[in-house]
Amino acid sequence: MRRERKRRVYLRMKTLEEAQTLWCDAFFDRRTPSEVVPVINALERVTSEPIFSRRSVPHYHGAAMDGYAVDASKTFGATEVNPIRLKVGADVFPVDTGDPLPPDTNAVIMVEHVMPQGSEIEIRKAVYPWQHVRKVGEDIVAGELIIPANHLLRPADLGALLAAGVTEVYVYRKPKVWIQPTGSELVSPNNAESLEPGEIIEFNGTVLKGLVEECLAIADLKEIVADDRDKIKDLLKQACHSDADVVLINAGSSAGSEDYTADVIEELGNLIVHGVTMMPGKPVVLGEVYGKPVVGIPGYPVSAIIAFEQFVRPLLWHLQGFYPPSKPTVKAVLGRKVASKLGLEEFVRVVVGRVHGKLIAMPIQRGAGVITSLTRAEGIVRIPQEQEGIDAEEEVSIELLRPESSLEWNLIMIGSHDNTIDLLASELKKMDSRLHLTSSNVGSLGGLMAIRKGLTHLAGSHLLDTSDGSYNFSYVERYLKGVPVRIVELVKREQGFLVAPGNPMGIRSVKDLVEKRARFINRQAGAGTRILFDYELDKAGLSPDQIIGYEQEEYTHMAVAVAILSGRADAGMGIFAAAKALGLDFIPVARERYDLIIREDIWSDRKIQLLMKLISSDGFRSSVSRLGGYDASCSGKLRGIWNGEKWLERTE
Amino acid sequence: MRRERKRRVYLRMKTLEEAQTLWCDAFFDRRTPSEVVPVINALERVTSEPIFSRRSVPHYHGAAMDGYAVDASKTFGATEVNPIRLKVGADVFPVDTGDPLPPDTNAVIMVEHVMPQGSEIEIRKAVYPWQHVRKVGEDIVAGELIIPANHLLRPADLGALLAAGVTEVYVYRKPKVWIQPTGSELVSPNNAESLEPGEIIEFNGTVLKGLVEECLAIADLKEIVADDRDKIKDLLKQACHSDADVVLINAGSSAGSEDYTADVIEELGNLIVHGVTMMPGKPVVLGEVYGKPVVGIPGYPVSAIIAFEQFVRPLLWHLQGFYPPSKPTVKAVLGRKVASKLGLEEFVRVVVGRVHGKLIAMPIQRGAGVITSLTRAEGIVRIPQEQEGIDAEEEVSIELLRPESSLEWNLIMIGSHDNTIDLLASELKKMDSRLHLTSSNVGSLGGLMAIRKGLTHLAGSHLLDTSDGSYNFSYVERYLKGVPVRIVELVKREQGFLVAPGNPMGIRSVKDLVEKRARFINRQAGAGTRILFDYELDKAGLSPDQIIGYEQEEYTHMAVAVAILSGRADAGMGIFAAAKALGLDFIPVARERYDLIIREDIWSDRKIQLLMKLISSDGFRSSVSRLGGYDASCSGKLRGIWNGEKWLERTE
Repeated sequence: MRRERKRRVYLRMKTLEEAQTLWCDAFFDRRTPSEVVPVINALERVTSEPIFSRRSVPHYHGAAMDGYAVDASKTFGATEVNPIRLKVGADVFPVDTGDPLPPDTNAVIMVEHVMPQGSEIEIRKAVYPWQHVRKVGEDIVAGELIIPANHLLRPADLGALLAAGVTEVYVYRKPKVWIQPTGSELVSPNNAESLEPGEIIEFNGTVLKGLVEECLAIADLKEIVADDRDKIKDLLKQACHSDADVVLINAGSSAGSEDYTADVIEELGNLIVHGVTMMPGKPVVLGEVYGKPVVGIPGYPVSAIIAFEQFVRPLLWHLQGFYPPSKPTVKAVLGRKVASKLGLEEFVRVVVGRVHGKLIAMPIQRGAGVITSLTRAEGIVRIPQEQEGIDAEEEVSIELLRPESSLEWNLIMIGSHDNTIDLLASELKKMDSRLHLTSSNVGSLGGLMAIRKGLTHLAGSHLLDTSDGSYNFSYVERYLKGVPVRIVELVKREQGFLVAPGNPMGIRSVKDLVEKRARFINRQAGAGTRILFDYELDKAGLSPDQIIGYEQEEYTHMAVAVAILSGRADAGMGIFAAAKALGLDFIPVARERYDLIIREDIWSDRKIQLLMKLISSDGFRSSVSRLGGYDASCSGKLRGIWNGEKWLERTE
Repeated sequence: MRRERKRRVYLRMKTLEEAQTLWCDAFFDRRTPSEVVPVINALERVTSEPIFSRRSVPHYHGAAMDGYAVDASKTFGATEVNPIRLKVGADVFPVDTGDPLPPDTNAVIMVEHVMPQGSEIEIRKAVYPWQHVRKVGEDIVAGELIIPANHLLRPADLGALLAAGVTEVYVYRKPKVWIQPTGSELVSPNNAESLEPGEIIEFNGTVLKGLVEECLAIADLKEIVADDRDKIKDLLKQACHSDADVVLINAGSSAGSEDYTADVIEELGNLIVHGVTMMPGKPVVLGEVYGKPVVGIPGYPVSAIIAFEQFVRPLLWHLQGFYPPSKPTVKAVLGRKVASKLGLEEFVRVVVGRVHGKLIAMPIQRGAGVITSLTRAEGIVRIPQEQEGIDAEEEVSIELLRPESSLEWNLIMIGSHDNTIDLLASELKKMDSRLHLTSSNVGSLGGLMAIRKGLTHLAGSHLLDTSDGSYNFSYVERYLKGVPVRIVELVKREQGFLVAPGNPMGIRSVKDLVEKRARFINRQAGAGTRILFDYELDKAGLSPDQIIGYEQEEYTHMAVAVAILSGRADAGMGIFAAAKALGLDFIPVARERYDLIIREDIWSDRKIQLLMKLISSDGFRSSVSRLGGYDASCSGKLRGIWNGEKWLERTE
């Protein structure tokens, strides 16, 4: 049954800043109640009271060295030529570090400075009073402030508290968060073996739970509830009467016909914000029900995470008396222009790496549904709402999602796509977990351009020179004047037509595409595969306008394969590995060389050297061969050294 | 019974770098075995295998907007002047975001662009094929690499895995660490009510447990064992035969008569390193027993933490296939000269704050036993072993123990010590948990010098001008030429003699100190209290050499009080609050004004304004009054504005 096309409207949307101010005013003064916990279990808790020392540390005068305790005045006058002898047990007393000083002693003679002589010791140097003694209160004085209120307890803090005789502390109770997944289309991850069209795995709940736990709070992830207004209302009542401190409802926060969150909050309590001019994350709902903060988290996963970061994370920290720890930021140069809508604050996910001394940020795919844009991202660039995008090569400020030092281990690859790149990324990380290969698919020519502009360490390229059948050399000569690079073969690979299993339309050649009126799916301009296809068209005497779907473009071999598998197209050109991965049929057309083009200035870098070691290894070659359609016998072979003007070396 | 004065010797000590290389060669290739965990429980685990997508995401062509699914070709030609009508249920089908596209449709018309007309809709704009459709595999393609091996899983990663149909992952088992406290002097924190001289609370175990947990490993903290060679040997055997991956023994790692760790490791296995040329942390032991890594952790708490950071932390991360996350570093100017021994790599704890645009690092107390040096520290400066210390105002690199952004919230106070400063620090943090007041006690004059050099935001000062009885003004004129400051009264306070409870020697005046041959404990030169004492001596016609102990110096009122309480001295000069805190008797001598001297360039900063708000508040005044010996009625009163040349305002 189709429901009615009823739509709600957003209240006047708020800017991010307005929404944060309203949210902050409503709840950020609130704290969870205090509770007492033993110090030994208080790691990462936040103190709700200042803590003062209950004893001095040390609480007695103790030896700071192994040796003999003595009244310093008995040693006065001892020199190399006038040694003094002292009786053990009468004048001096053996002590180890930490032992209390015996009565009437006030210094320690180090054992290294003593010559034992039977029941006496001989010394050749005087000690002064309190030498080598840890005096009472030297570290901590009774009554002194050890830890202020609102302090996050770290391991050393626990040691200081115990040392100071404090065994229990008052801390803010951990906030508890009720996470309510809603949606008739959702299927629990536990029943995820097969999905019908329209069904979606409920994974936002697990993401939100993880985010809550990162805020040192307690997540209570509930069962999925269907898009049923009454059920959602009942659950919201129940949640707001429970011991939860914060309630998250995911999703139903938008303004669609089945988005009940805002509506139900308004009925039961107070709707503070519905809709924020940010992207992703626009359809967020902020409200209060029975005095409890309730957040309607958007359904798209990136929107969900960004809404959490902007509103829930600061709330959870404030409830514990603490400001959210801020993320490190760096300045970088944007590698590619990003457009953005006026009036929306945009959060652009980027990968970041240091190329030729400069940090470069490369924007990655932007859809709010694309959760891998966040798993791959190293940072976020914000485009303010009064700005229509950012130009390439502008300086931007990046909020990092990983430690800054990790950026130095990022290897950036821009250019043509090949299925072995996943393998490279994975194997590199196995060699050294710090190594992180990120790749952007912009086609072979796009890769050469990125090399020229200093935006990438290396590029994947398989550009055919149709005049002589060579790969890449002539393109490097044309596009990389003044930019020294090396060319290293990664693989040779089969290119051909991908068609549905069994090749139902019987496509065998370019001609067949026209004759059988096959719906074609093309690669973007500048892709090596597009050049190859155009070359094949030309050889067959055909023109692009004879190909149905010539203007339909995808950016990767796998996207082409998916288009065919899902019935969007009948044929496309791509590599064997893509056909094999998705079980498609493959009609071979050509065998081509796929090279890595590497900037000379990064050649001796450890990251590239590990990459070279990897691609020349037997293990890599046999893994590649197992993918099918590849010849890895020359993997790692140096094909050319280009000094920016001429070839110092060139091997066909 | 006193044991024999037997001493072992360190093997040839290793440099930190040598020791780390040996340790790394021995164990860093090792990984804990893999185990399978459900993705929903895999937060902060490290993958041991690469993970590939089991399905495409989306796995069906779905609506990306709420609206009507349609075959795009049916919309061609629709314009503002030539609307097209389409029949609901035949030509177009209502869909919500996420719904699968019905058969024979390939685009979605946004609901906002539709005019419902009974059972038809009217559109005034065509859609193109695949518009507003989330196509199969748009986010993730089946078979694609989702997460490489050796990757630390974060919340978004879990979402990506579940979305890709992956519900279980192979991760490295969490390393388990056996933590063995040893020491006959140790008392469990659970029995810590009263301690005998020589007894020490066992708190390192809790610190080590916390440090282990911060490395995402499992800590197994054992019962204390006495310094008994056979018992320790038995336990080490047991530990190395258990399921623990790493064994820590604390302490007994030095070369004293009761330090058995190195010895026992050598007997049972392989002693790799005994003694590292670093400070603190020199007496560290690294070894292998039955194939297991064993670390003898030094007993002094700062040594213990530094030894852990240098050797155990990297090991625990490597066992999980991961490099230890590196700490952020910043450059700062050293505020005070630090000496260091040639041949020892020294780890100096510092507090850090931004003064007049520059980051300033102030070294704090250096004893390896002083755990509060780490609770207070914001970072660590390393002095290489080939260097004899670092001069004041040299640039240093600091490894931060807190996020870099937190440094902007640090308020640095250098100068005279007063007991209300603890209260200030604690109350400021209550007002805003980011606010962090750090104070160094160098006396009033030292504080003025620090102001002059731009090393501090503010200074506490109570410098008496003996010629006219005024406080601070004449000193500011003399020492702060060209440096504009404001003077704000913090408190007035009682100064006097601190003596043992009951005043057994009957001390009533300076004269009594001489006549009754009291052992005096003095304050350091430059301290306001020292100036006051000298003034009192002078008034009484006495000279310093008549005072026993005049040359014995302490840096704070509380240290003077402790010296008297512990019997090191009979009398000292200090404030009433110090006497009261430790239950000493107090003989009043003078009433003085204690001011805050604040750099003009920081005056309008939010931190200072919060401080001003605090000290002018009724709450602060009554808290101060409760300490005793204070008059807080003028707290927060502006006493002077000095423009560097003359007083713009001055109120006695």
